[in-house]
Amino acid sequence: MDDADVAFQGERGAYSEGAAISYFGEKLVPISCRTLKEVFSKVESKKVNFAVVPMENSLEGSVNESYDLLLESNLKVRGEIEYRVNHCLIANPGTKLKEIREVYSHPQALAQCRGYLSKMGFDTVPAYDTAGSVLLIKEKKLEKTAAIASSRAAEIYGMKVLADKIAGSTRNFTRFFVLGDSDHQPTGADKTSIIFSTKHQPGALYAVMKVFASNKINLTKIESRPTKRTPWEYNFYVDFEGHRLDVKIQKLLRTLDQAAVFVKILGSYPAARK
Amino acid sequence: MDDADVAFQGERGAYSEGAAISYFGEKLVPISCRTLKEVFSKVESKKVNFAVVPMENSLEGSVNESYDLLLESNLKVRGEIEYRVNHCLIANPGTKLKEIREVYSHPQALAQCRGYLSKMGFDTVPAYDTAGSVLLIKEKKLEKTAAIASSRAAEIYGMKVLADKIAGSTRNFTRFFVLGDSDHQPTGADKTSIIFSTKHQPGALYAVMKVFASNKINLTKIESRPTKRTPWEYNFYVDFEGHRLDVKIQKLLRTLDQAAVFVKILGSYPAARK
Repeated sequence: MDDADVAFQGERGAYSEGAAISYFGEKLVPISCRTLKEVFSKVESKKVNFAVVPMENSLEGSVNESYDLLLESNLKVRGEIEYRVNHCLIANPGTKLKEIREVYSHPQALAQCRGYLSKMGFDTVPAYDTAGSVLLIKEKKLEKTAAIASSRAAEIYGMKVLADKIAGSTRNFTRFFVLGDSDHQPTGADKTSIIFSTKHQPGALYAVMKVFASNKINLTKIESRPTKRTPWEYNFYVDFEGHRLDVKIQKLLRTLDQAAVFVKILGSYPAARK
Repeated sequence: MDDADVAFQGERGAYSEGAAISYFGEKLVPISCRTLKEVFSKVESKKVNFAVVPMENSLEGSVNESYDLLLESNLKVRGEIEYRVNHCLIANPGTKLKEIREVYSHPQALAQCRGYLSKMGFDTVPAYDTAGSVLLIKEKKLEKTAAIASSRAAEIYGMKVLADKIAGSTRNFTRFFVLGDSDHQPTGADKTSIIFSTKHQPGALYAVMKVFASNKINLTKIESRPTKRTPWEYNFYVDFEGHRLDVKIQKLLRTLDQAAVFVKILGSYPAARK
């Protein structure tokens, strides 16, 4: 099988890279990017074939920046991944747990481990990403300092896992989209993602929802995002069951085009959970 | 008029404090809190009368943590504030713009000023809050370093504004809720906020939306948040026009109680925008 070069946000060892491995397996060639914007532009400019981007987390909710980037981009959604997040406390090999004073990580990871961190009396330092914090304390040879990241990040950088499963909840999953320049052919167990906006008038959102209900389409997610043009006007992002080439979905999309101001089809892809 | 002690998240000079001043005026007694959770608990334990908490920003979208805290809390929404965000570059009084190398602020403020920061070639350092970054560079007497925050933060700490209006968009507003132990009496131009969850079956959200449409209620906002109990199940947060004591709204709420699994009324309050 051909190699699959895949852009993701974060340093090597990021949860996004772990999700990409779970999807592409051995053929993965990981391309680490500093920002989500860079991830998108690498694939848009055809320097990289695929991207894996986080869309929502089961505890924190949607990743706003990913939704905003999808609106502007011509990339298509061609896959969906559900990936379990397991936060570990990671330090330089010589460091002992009782020596730790300060912990670096992404603010979301720090928040998810709030209970553990406060029980241990550690100070927290916000950083841009989880695996990047591991790299930081390695490169700066920081003592008395740990990072929160995946166990894969510890492996990659030759660091030590001081504590495992330190998050408050074990129901911590992130849902990723796989992006490319085309979506996926029908498999019989597919989902489709679209963006639409409604007229700015009472009942407009209801009129669109009615199109889904009367076509008996199962919505799996609805999310609103500010349009950024006018305060308190929103675009809606919807995921539903079915492939855009299914007869039933084609009928839905034709009706939606009349009920909404604009409709953008992000793509159809095999559902991660059958 | 009595003094109004009001809890807000961030150091003195935070945008939340500015919003509180715009609402309470001269009678405000500002109570600075480190976290949003602390803001809520100060009012819940009756140590403080009111809270002002950010709910959504016109560029970034909803403040997830505020929505999650409202679900657990018994506090009522009694007011709504729209407040313009104007990011400034702030440094110690002796510092010149051309000396700046590094800029501290909340990641969201850094992102909103991305264009300016990259044009100027500044490195960025994430911090917990905007006004807190100003205090940090003051206390540590950092040279070659600036913070992004409100001009009020510069005033309060005796610091210098090196550049004004540095964000990419001027359509940058934050919407705040005023919380207390009771909501507001009807004024004739009110809004009501509720949380509901639906049965986990096709068409369940549509059935609830139908209740709003058939009662001709104007929804002004709908937001979904993960339940945290089961991955990919959501609670919905809805704002709509009308007061919970209006006859029309009382009818709506009775019907909603049948269509939804649970309904929590957060409160009714005068709309910020008439």
